[in-house]
Amino acid sequence: MTLSDLKRFLIGEPFPTSREIHERLDKVRALAVFASDPISSNAYATEAIMSVLIVLGSGALSMTLPLGLAVAALVLLVISSYIQTILHYPDGGGAYTVAKDNLGVHASLLAAAALLTDYILTVSVSVSAGVRAVTSAFPSTYDHRVTIAIGAILFITWINLRGVRESGTIFAIPTYAFVGGVLVVIVIGLVRYFGIFGAAPIEPSAEQLPATTSLAGFAYIWLLLRAFAGGCTALTGIEAISNGVQAFKPPESKNAAITMVVMGAMAMSLFVGITFLATHLELVPHEFESILSQLTRRVTGGGFLYYWVQFFTALILFLAANTGYQDFPRLSSFLAKDNFLPRWLQNRGDRLVFSAGIVVLALISSIIVIVFQADEIAMLPLYALGVMLSFSISQTGMFRLMGKIAHLKPGETMHTSVTEIYYEKNVKWKQGLNAVGAVVTFVVFIILTTTKFIEGAWIVALLIPVLVFTFHAIHRHYDQVANALSTSGMTMENITDVADVVIIPIADVHRGTVLAMEYAKRISKDVRALTIITSPEMEERLSRRWSRFPEITNDIQLVTIEYDYRDILKPLIDYIVKVNTVEFPDMITTIVVPEFIPEHSASRILHNQTADRLRSRLKQYKDIVIIDVPFHIDSQI
Amino acid sequence: MTLSDLKRFLIGEPFPTSREIHERLDKVRALAVFASDPISSNAYATEAIMSVLIVLGSGALSMTLPLGLAVAALVLLVISSYIQTILHYPDGGGAYTVAKDNLGVHASLLAAAALLTDYILTVSVSVSAGVRAVTSAFPSTYDHRVTIAIGAILFITWINLRGVRESGTIFAIPTYAFVGGVLVVIVIGLVRYFGIFGAAPIEPSAEQLPATTSLAGFAYIWLLLRAFAGGCTALTGIEAISNGVQAFKPPESKNAAITMVVMGAMAMSLFVGITFLATHLELVPHEFESILSQLTRRVTGGGFLYYWVQFFTALILFLAANTGYQDFPRLSSFLAKDNFLPRWLQNRGDRLVFSAGIVVLALISSIIVIVFQADEIAMLPLYALGVMLSFSISQTGMFRLMGKIAHLKPGETMHTSVTEIYYEKNVKWKQGLNAVGAVVTFVVFIILTTTKFIEGAWIVALLIPVLVFTFHAIHRHYDQVANALSTSGMTMENITDVADVVIIPIADVHRGTVLAMEYAKRISKDVRALTIITSPEMEERLSRRWSRFPEITNDIQLVTIEYDYRDILKPLIDYIVKVNTVEFPDMITTIVVPEFIPEHSASRILHNQTADRLRSRLKQYKDIVIIDVPFHIDSQI
Repeated sequence: MTLSDLKRFLIGEPFPTSREIHERLDKVRALAVFASDPISSNAYATEAIMSVLIVLGSGALSMTLPLGLAVAALVLLVISSYIQTILHYPDGGGAYTVAKDNLGVHASLLAAAALLTDYILTVSVSVSAGVRAVTSAFPSTYDHRVTIAIGAILFITWINLRGVRESGTIFAIPTYAFVGGVLVVIVIGLVRYFGIFGAAPIEPSAEQLPATTSLAGFAYIWLLLRAFAGGCTALTGIEAISNGVQAFKPPESKNAAITMVVMGAMAMSLFVGITFLATHLELVPHEFESILSQLTRRVTGGGFLYYWVQFFTALILFLAANTGYQDFPRLSSFLAKDNFLPRWLQNRGDRLVFSAGIVVLALISSIIVIVFQADEIAMLPLYALGVMLSFSISQTGMFRLMGKIAHLKPGETMHTSVTEIYYEKNVKWKQGLNAVGAVVTFVVFIILTTTKFIEGAWIVALLIPVLVFTFHAIHRHYDQVANALSTSGMTMENITDVADVVIIPIADVHRGTVLAMEYAKRISKDVRALTIITSPEMEERLSRRWSRFPEITNDIQLVTIEYDYRDILKPLIDYIVKVNTVEFPDMITTIVVPEFIPEHSASRILHNQTADRLRSRLKQYKDIVIIDVPFHIDSQI
Repeated sequence: MTLSDLKRFLIGEPFPTSREIHERLDKVRALAVFASDPISSNAYATEAIMSVLIVLGSGALSMTLPLGLAVAALVLLVISSYIQTILHYPDGGGAYTVAKDNLGVHASLLAAAALLTDYILTVSVSVSAGVRAVTSAFPSTYDHRVTIAIGAILFITWINLRGVRESGTIFAIPTYAFVGGVLVVIVIGLVRYFGIFGAAPIEPSAEQLPATTSLAGFAYIWLLLRAFAGGCTALTGIEAISNGVQAFKPPESKNAAITMVVMGAMAMSLFVGITFLATHLELVPHEFESILSQLTRRVTGGGFLYYWVQFFTALILFLAANTGYQDFPRLSSFLAKDNFLPRWLQNRGDRLVFSAGIVVLALISSIIVIVFQADEIAMLPLYALGVMLSFSISQTGMFRLMGKIAHLKPGETMHTSVTEIYYEKNVKWKQGLNAVGAVVTFVVFIILTTTKFIEGAWIVALLIPVLVFTFHAIHRHYDQVANALSTSGMTMENITDVADVVIIPIADVHRGTVLAMEYAKRISKDVRALTIITSPEMEERLSRRWSRFPEITNDIQLVTIEYDYRDILKPLIDYIVKVNTVEFPDMITTIVVPEFIPEHSASRILHNQTADRLRSRLKQYKDIVIIDVPFHIDSQI
């Protein structure tokens, strides 16, 4: 089985470019596809708040619920602003697109850098949180969490390389099973907590906590801000629908907007429910078991429902990671198309997916998982910043767009670079909403950055400008290449002349070098065989064999160079460069490289790769053309 | 700083081939150089015996001393036989040489395979044991033992790549410091143990052991054999002097023989002394502290002398690893010269050392250290087998040589393939000694293999025949290559004709492809530009640009192939192969590959490596010559 067969087996038959594989989603499936990321945040968002408050002891945990409600309010605000985006960018209005259309290239690159960072973290955080759901249920697997996480990333990568795209049904089952399971837990929890229907009360937490410490003034506010910042991880993934409007059945924008509302309502009910019960049952964050797992175990007693919730928590988190696999390759292909990232990121693979982007994402997120040892709570300080920044930029862009719309008269239309806008009513109100959204998310971005700065946010704060700088550098490079290759103003005089000289480096006269010499004589009158002599025996042998084939060697000049070191490439290249620059300056010098190629590529390891090394060294010199004359050898190994 | 500068900085200036860097050693330094390996075995050999006996409880440990004495007797026997080898092979008589000279190629390859295995293990075992000396003294470093071991291997590799060869003085200090330190410990230990001079007695071991279990008959003998096999690790490294006779000052053979005797006496005094004290102080093997460390700590009370011994134990073990770096590259270069290993193993690097062999050794031994987690006791079952087998083969070879000498009359001389032999007296006695040596070491080899088979010896028992098979396969490959390249019987008709066709794959008309087309037109009348069309826009753009330069494109046929997939290499290659096999069968087809090369090699990552991938795919087809026409592009990154 060859490598190519293996690839076919793993990835499947290639799809033709003309095949349209995009299937539109109905609202039920679309909700499942897009909601897996924001809904899955429920697996850790409450815990992220509590793990900050815990340092003050048990009393401070009571602030969890108010902070959770603040986060929920923020989500609702962001969703209302995003509905505007969806309605105005029916072809997909990611932050990059909206910013490019309304704010220019710098803002769009800033948004793109922020989003790419967050998409990578979506994979690392979601997979790690999914693994925590597994290790919470089966504590003996805790030591293998990094291996499990990498295995999950490999699996998701494989599925995505096969091109099984946002297949609604696959997503629908775990998403609704998770939502249903957690809702049942919340309902049972509330029933038991309030003693409705005379239900058995839940025993209070047995955990002994240090007495509440109190902090005064600023320090206390700071702690609350940090806890709030933790909860903001619940906002990640909300923007996904705005990117994928075209995945909905017509009327796309309307269906997408409705789905977004339902998604927000669903995610926030779970979030508030979990937060309420976690605080009122006095749960305490614990390294080995997540809050959601504790909550479910306490409420259900650890039976079937418990394993149901844990199982689908793991599954929905792995699916949430999958949204990173949708978003990162797509955004990086946009950037690549605009020459801000390597162009091969826009190449589609055999299955029409952006294979290179998928592989890059898998690599980087795996590295993060290994560095952080699959501890998603430790990664959270890096997370959500990017989303907040891109929210803010995107809402600012919408604010500008609304401003333009406000100038339209009834019946007037106009075009921006990617969308068409019409007159509409109540624009000032909508613009106000976008302004509030932009300001609030920017404030939250600042809060996230400052409160989590030391814990890791500085990495992202450093990375985003570095990425923007890199985008510009790449763009400049492509510009320079395009200019250098451009034929504008080219005349026949610009084309470099070819010198009538051919140099063949040889170490011996054998069938391989004889073939190369014959080829060289065909294209030039001035053929020189170049040999580096490292021992007297070698010189004797070469000159003996040289004289044996006068019909071949007669017209060829034999250049021998004695050399007392082993790195024979150096004198070879020195001679070639001298001919190229001194004898025939500003002309092309041709080098014929005889290379024998064993039948089995594995046996290449048995030979010095002199031809390969010579070629790669010569590549750095200008005006040198290299001709490979291969000589194939049959051999058993 | 370029890579080349970095290499210069790390490795040093290259030495010319003609520079003779070999310095002869006096006996004091030679002893230090060659004895580091066998003397360093004292760090683990006693422990290897005890860790087998311990399973029977405290009583069985008393068998340690008798077994140790048996090992010492074996060492003396091997040394006496080896002195014969040294005297008859003054140019160096390693097992490979002696076997090749007297027993033929198969026996020599068997010996070589056994030795290569053992040289690799010398590095892994010695470095791991050296790290154990460090972690015994500083238990907090235990968790980092693999990292420390890999660091030590890297350091030794670096030193060897620099070509600092068996520099006597560097070796002398730690070797004599270790021998001196351990001797002092043994003397103090004996003085305190026997209460001589009224010395304070040593407290008995506080360790509680299970009561002695007893084993009956065969099971007991089996255990003793296993323990004896463990002690045989003390024999490793003894053969080093026979390889390196030429490193001695004249008279080489005599000096080498004397040194061998002193070395044996020294190593065995330490071994017997340590074994005596370890058993009489009732020490017990322990994972976290070596027997030698326990012994020294108990005898000296853990003061300066303790750290002295631990420090020089670590050092001498790292030096013992260094002997692997002398032996492995040298033996593999012999094999490479005889075409049994890849030929590049005989290439000397900048500093005249066998760099490739050094790097291969470092890689394999590092892998073993990682797999065994730097636990040298776990590696020992793999160790010493190879040495025993090569001892036995080499002594058998000497037996044959002695048989030839026995036929000489006084004054007669004769030549074997590598040595000259003279008449001598008492040959029958000496031959008998070799026979005993051959038989005893073979029996020990069988004991080692069977007793340690399950614990890991099977790996070596499997590896050695696999290596021998590989040697033969490599030899066959080189024979086939030599036959294929041979010019014997070659006539001018044998040389493949060149078809007058040149194919240039292009995706666009730009300065790079224009240059390539001009070059192609220079060497052929039938030039075809080959384009794979993947979209209508691409076709339109290409045909527009194609018509803009009629003075270039007029004489060129434009071949376009429409293709509905993304892997454009496939249709390119299909077309090329069709031309090569159908249009011009049995002739050479020329492909001109335009390639643009960015100034900075780092920016290659920004471009599809289509040219490189095309070249490597085309290499597998016969009769295709590839011409690289580079177009250099200045760019900032």
